[in-house]
Amino acid sequence: MRIRILVTGGTFDKQYDELAGRLFFRETHVPEMLGRGRCRLDVTVDTVMMVDSLDLDDRGRAAIVERCQASAERALVVTHGTDTIVDTARAIAAANLRDRTIVLTGAMVPYAFGSSDGLFNLGSALSFAQVLPPGVYVAMNGQYFAWDRVRKNRESGIFEAAP
Amino acid sequence: MRIRILVTGGTFDKQYDELAGRLFFRETHVPEMLGRGRCRLDVTVDTVMMVDSLDLDDRGRAAIVERCQASAERALVVTHGTDTIVDTARAIAAANLRDRTIVLTGAMVPYAFGSSDGLFNLGSALSFAQVLPPGVYVAMNGQYFAWDRVRKNRESGIFEAAP
Amino acid sequence: MRIRILVTGGTFDKQYDELAGRLFFRETHVPEMLGRGRCRLDVTVDTVMMVDSLDLDDRGRAAIVERCQASAERALVVTHGTDTIVDTARAIAAANLRDRTIVLTGAMVPYAFGSSDGLFNLGSALSFAQVLPPGVYVAMNGQYFAWDRVRKNRESGIFEAAP
Amino acid sequence: MRIRILVTGGTFDKQYDELAGRLFFRETHVPEMLGRGRCRLDVTVDTVMMVDSLDLDDRGRAAIVERCQASAERALVVTHGTDTIVDTARAIAAANLRDRTIVLTGAMVPYAFGSSDGLFNLGSALSFAQVLPPGVYVAMNGQYFAWDRVRKNRESGIFEAAP
Repeated sequence: MRIRILVTGGTFDKQYDELAGRLFFRETHVPEMLGRGRCRLDVTVDTVMMVDSLDLDDRGRAAIVERCQASAERALVVTHGTDTIVDTARAIAAANLRDRTIVLTGAMVPYAFGSSDGLFNLGSALSFAQVLPPGVYVAMNGQYFAWDRVRKNRESGIFEAAP
Repeated sequence: MRIRILVTGGTFDKQYDELAGRLFFRETHVPEMLGRGRCRLDVTVDTVMMVDSLDLDDRGRAAIVERCQASAERALVVTHGTDTIVDTARAIAAANLRDRTIVLTGAMVPYAFGSSDGLFNLGSALSFAQVLPPGVYVAMNGQYFAWDRVRKNRESGIFEAAP
Repeated sequence: MRIRILVTGGTFDKQYDELAGRLFFRETHVPEMLGRGRCRLDVTVDTVMMVDSLDLDDRGRAAIVERCQASAERALVVTHGTDTIVDTARAIAAANLRDRTIVLTGAMVPYAFGSSDGLFNLGSALSFAQVLPPGVYVAMNGQYFAWDRVRKNRESGIFEAAP
Repeated sequence: MRIRILVTGGTFDKQYDELAGRLFFRETHVPEMLGRGRCRLDVTVDTVMMVDSLDLDDRGRAAIVERCQASAERALVVTHGTDTIVDTARAIAAANLRDRTIVLTGAMVPYAFGSSDGLFNLGSALSFAQVLPPGVYVAMNGQYFAWDRVRKNRESGIFEAAP
């Protein structure tokens, strides 16, 4: 089974700029993470953009949807900032891509930090993408949620089922 | 969904004994790993034993099978040394536990090392355990295999489909 | 020999706020770092403030100088943001504290990041503080500089001898 | 000031062999560590051998002494296993190398482990090597000891002053 990972940035990929003393984006850490996980899936890593999801507007969101449509793979993982991941999931679902299992995931702490949840989430999202039926999902905290049944609790930072 | 993690040791949990200068087992790292992954699943961590899987004999294997049988959860993850993980998967399958999804996983590098694949594998195994149909599986390298369709390639350290 | 570490914040101690998605200060990492270094020196850790050194004004700088004066130890290490570390070294030198060896150090990357230089710099500063003659120094990049013979090269991020 | 680092192996440089499931030596981590420390000293890294210091015999020890003699630098750091580091310090001192400051250091936990003291010790040893008067020293736990005034406490793993 072939899987495409669409990289959009988010906390996952934030790095520390040691000259400016702030977080920024450079290249995605996803290939390094796949190496660390000794991942042997047939994966293509495809960087769509590198942005903080709070800076993502409708146009950016449309670009992600478009890339999902253009992908030949039936299993897709989208790495995304957690703040608006549910919005992007909704936008993808609205595009009505049949026969695709699309799993969005993110991280609460950048992979470059020792304490990141990123590797756990990537392992989780890639696994869900292989076995969940077609649809659009968010995978966080070891769980998966249908795109229209999830919200981020902004006080706790945890994703929870939405009614 | 409730999940039980049965810990049996393996590379996953090897630590460095700084007085003796060698690897050993103390307590499992699984709870720390679940914390790092911000895991919010209803998980019970249950340490069956802490051994190198090369030291695991039939009696030890029987103890693992017994603990699987005694578990009320329908989803189980077993952390295990990779050298004999397939043997233990076979032993569990032979016990014919119906209605259970049992996923065995391990690590090539101890979690205590910076470069460990353990967090990726744990995220992966917990995800497969939630969505695969009842059966016994090995999850490694981002992939899952039915217990009777997998072998560890000892030269490359990679799990691959067995005919 | 007793050593006092005066903590003032700086990159050393920046953490990632996973709810707000930005860097911030909470508690100092210095005790954890001393533990990792298996440090057995007679060290007192004393948090003066927790600030980005770009936000440090004359008043804050005076507070650091005052704490140096009030310290009974003859060897002091001051952790400090690198952007204005030379300014603070100058302010301390102006106070003319006799019989004290005062070593300022910092980090280019926060300790909480895997790739931090902080542990190296802390080991270095504590060592210089034990053996350099009384005076005020900056220790970075494995080197030490008298307070009036150093500048930070803002393009490379490296400390170099100033004429 | 030019410094030569003589690498002899020891816990510092132990790695995890993921196929064999045990610790072994490959290449030294010292250049990577110098990079992480943003070290700007004029350092030459010179691998003499890669051994566990328990396996070091008189012949091996003589090779280290010889390399110290052959080095043009007046400041030397020797990375060494902690179990027999004091024996090697004594052997070097017996060679009566005048005008040289030679600092031996090691680690209790391999650098490849997240929790290693190695980076702290390397920063410390390089600093002592620059400022201590000629002689042979052991630097561990943030402290330095003259070669004939130190022993490793094998129960605690800590270096302490010997009468």
